[in-house]
Amino acid sequence: MQVISLITDFGLSDWFVGTMKGVIARLAPAARVIDLTHDVPHGDIRGAAFALRAGYHFFPKGTIHVAVVDPGVGSARQALAVQTSNYFFVGPDNGVLSFALRREKVIAIRLLKKANYFLQAVSHTFHGRDIFAPVAAHLSRGIPIRRLGPPANDFVRLSWPEPVRHNTKIEGEIAYLDRFGNGITNLPAELINPLRATKCIVHSRGRLICPLKPFYQAVPLKRPVAVVGSSGFLEIGVNGGSAKQSLGLRIGTRVTL
Amino acid sequence: MQVISLITDFGLSDWFVGTMKGVIARLAPAARVIDLTHDVPHGDIRGAAFALRAGYHFFPKGTIHVAVVDPGVGSARQALAVQTSNYFFVGPDNGVLSFALRREKVIAIRLLKKANYFLQAVSHTFHGRDIFAPVAAHLSRGIPIRRLGPPANDFVRLSWPEPVRHNTKIEGEIAYLDRFGNGITNLPAELINPLRATKCIVHSRGRLICPLKPFYQAVPLKRPVAVVGSSGFLEIGVNGGSAKQSLGLRIGTRVTL
Amino acid sequence: MQVISLITDFGLSDWFVGTMKGVIARLAPAARVIDLTHDVPHGDIRGAAFALRAGYHFFPKGTIHVAVVDPGVGSARQALAVQTSNYFFVGPDNGVLSFALRREKVIAIRLLKKANYFLQAVSHTFHGRDIFAPVAAHLSRGIPIRRLGPPANDFVRLSWPEPVRHNTKIEGEIAYLDRFGNGITNLPAELINPLRATKCIVHSRGRLICPLKPFYQAVPLKRPVAVVGSSGFLEIGVNGGSAKQSLGLRIGTRVTL
Repeated sequence: MQVISLITDFGLSDWFVGTMKGVIARLAPAARVIDLTHDVPHGDIRGAAFALRAGYHFFPKGTIHVAVVDPGVGSARQALAVQTSNYFFVGPDNGVLSFALRREKVIAIRLLKKANYFLQAVSHTFHGRDIFAPVAAHLSRGIPIRRLGPPANDFVRLSWPEPVRHNTKIEGEIAYLDRFGNGITNLPAELINPLRATKCIVHSRGRLICPLKPFYQAVPLKRPVAVVGSSGFLEIGVNGGSAKQSLGLRIGTRVTL
Repeated sequence: MQVISLITDFGLSDWFVGTMKGVIARLAPAARVIDLTHDVPHGDIRGAAFALRAGYHFFPKGTIHVAVVDPGVGSARQALAVQTSNYFFVGPDNGVLSFALRREKVIAIRLLKKANYFLQAVSHTFHGRDIFAPVAAHLSRGIPIRRLGPPANDFVRLSWPEPVRHNTKIEGEIAYLDRFGNGITNLPAELINPLRATKCIVHSRGRLICPLKPFYQAVPLKRPVAVVGSSGFLEIGVNGGSAKQSLGLRIGTRVTL
Repeated sequence: MQVISLITDFGLSDWFVGTMKGVIARLAPAARVIDLTHDVPHGDIRGAAFALRAGYHFFPKGTIHVAVVDPGVGSARQALAVQTSNYFFVGPDNGVLSFALRREKVIAIRLLKKANYFLQAVSHTFHGRDIFAPVAAHLSRGIPIRRLGPPANDFVRLSWPEPVRHNTKIEGEIAYLDRFGNGITNLPAELINPLRATKCIVHSRGRLICPLKPFYQAVPLKRPVAVVGSSGFLEIGVNGGSAKQSLGLRIGTRVTL
């Protein structure tokens, strides 16, 4: 059994995701499809890149991750298939795959129509269904990635927001806001744990001092708290509330440790 | 492996869709269920009929499409199972299947409880779980459709909005609004391509001239554009925006070519 | 084939549910996952308990139901696995399983990390992925439940709102509001049917007399109606509308029969 994961900004209210799955079921009946999410904000390539980075490595070895957040669909942007030591990745060459690939050795391929692994009629507006789903289906059936097109010498890499170290301080930022309103920072557990820090400062509306605790309920209800979250990054939350709303967190809000 | 697709207006916030899948897993463990969508607006039979029409033919041959938008559940409306050359369709006889069946030769069956393919206790309010899911499960196991009940001499057909031709003009209308705010018209590619048209007129707030392009990004950001969309119909969109919001598109808005 | 059902308050907009499914696919490739729902309101343990109670028994025998609404994640609350005559249940020991278990004979186990059925690194904030998904995966592979930890002598049981009988009246309340705005009461069909009642009284804004009918469309459009719903309880609805909005129903609104 081969797993194909999907992350898109198509939402679930139309037939778009359903037809991607129909195409996969037609071309690769044995593949199993798992939704990572389809509610990436419309066109938010960075948000999708972060979510894929946070989730891809929990999947079985050999999983084919398909990411379609593709505001440039139909234009000259390229399409990619990538193989790493444990996974495959398929999507437009606009950076959406790049956070997950940041530390991986990759074989990257530029997808070509003439390789005959697309749907016969390719629309200008829905490559998720016509290119990326069929390519994932063919990969799941064991087609070698090199058959899909020529090597891609390079591909678009979004800049990862690296934490900055000033003497005793480390400065980071909010990189993702989840649906609970928690702000996930770019500060990884490996940086935080050796510091034995007991608090951080959130620079949203003024300076907010925020205690570091092992879990949300370790502070009183409605109080802010920083925890090393399940993605391995420091998260700013509010016990029983939304840090986005009550602290005014935004993507890019500075957090110092 | 047999595929069962589901389209409903049940949403995903309650247990309704989950229990339909539980029933299918119980009766047909080998069937695979794919969601077309469950976010059809409540009671919007036409919207569901259009979505089913746009999506059904991307599924594997033999797929059983179940459509449950059913404001008349429990009343005297009939229930149908339909076989076409490539697919099965199951749902209430209220028109929800009719756009997908428009050009198909069909065997249509009126579902009868005494045929013993429903759940034992049929509620008055949830035929999706008690009738349509079990019937789809039995069909996926190879039960011949004629065992499900007597032939249906006729069934409810919604009027498809046919484009109208006036000399050199072709007049159509918005038939569906997707979640990106694109307006999908009833003007098919076969009508449009021979015309080599370069623009169309959208009659929403006054007359709006809208260029025909191969893809959305072929116009500047926030500008309106018409493309032959992935469903094979002319679509009115706004590059990087919502045509529904910025052009005021509605179902029925006239579009002339 | 073994079925695992999931009910959570994680929503579908982040990668949380997707990674739970990734973990299950890794540990139990043959298991099939069915979503009961992921849109339980954030932290609403009672709502999830009711939805699980309403849906679990439609699943195949042997299904493993995983319920993760877990505001106390990371704190001292225990984690449970429970076996009944037909099903398994996995979740935090905060009452979320208790409505489904109300009338069942159970074997209840307190999950222990040292039993080695969790992910190797257990986060403090996402036991759905790190504890409950792997435990369900192992159960689906036939691991005996007693290996997961010691017997739980007791577990948290939420108080089920029992209907109250006064001479000729039976008094109940709204126990759940579905996404259509129907109010599902705690009055079961077994209580109602013998009474041959023709109406009930809803005490929301003043006293509203509401006819008992077999289905919603048995009253004129926009009129209130009471039906024995698909969960086996009396429901208060409005034909073609939302009883929540137009009648002002709330959880706890009194309904007398």
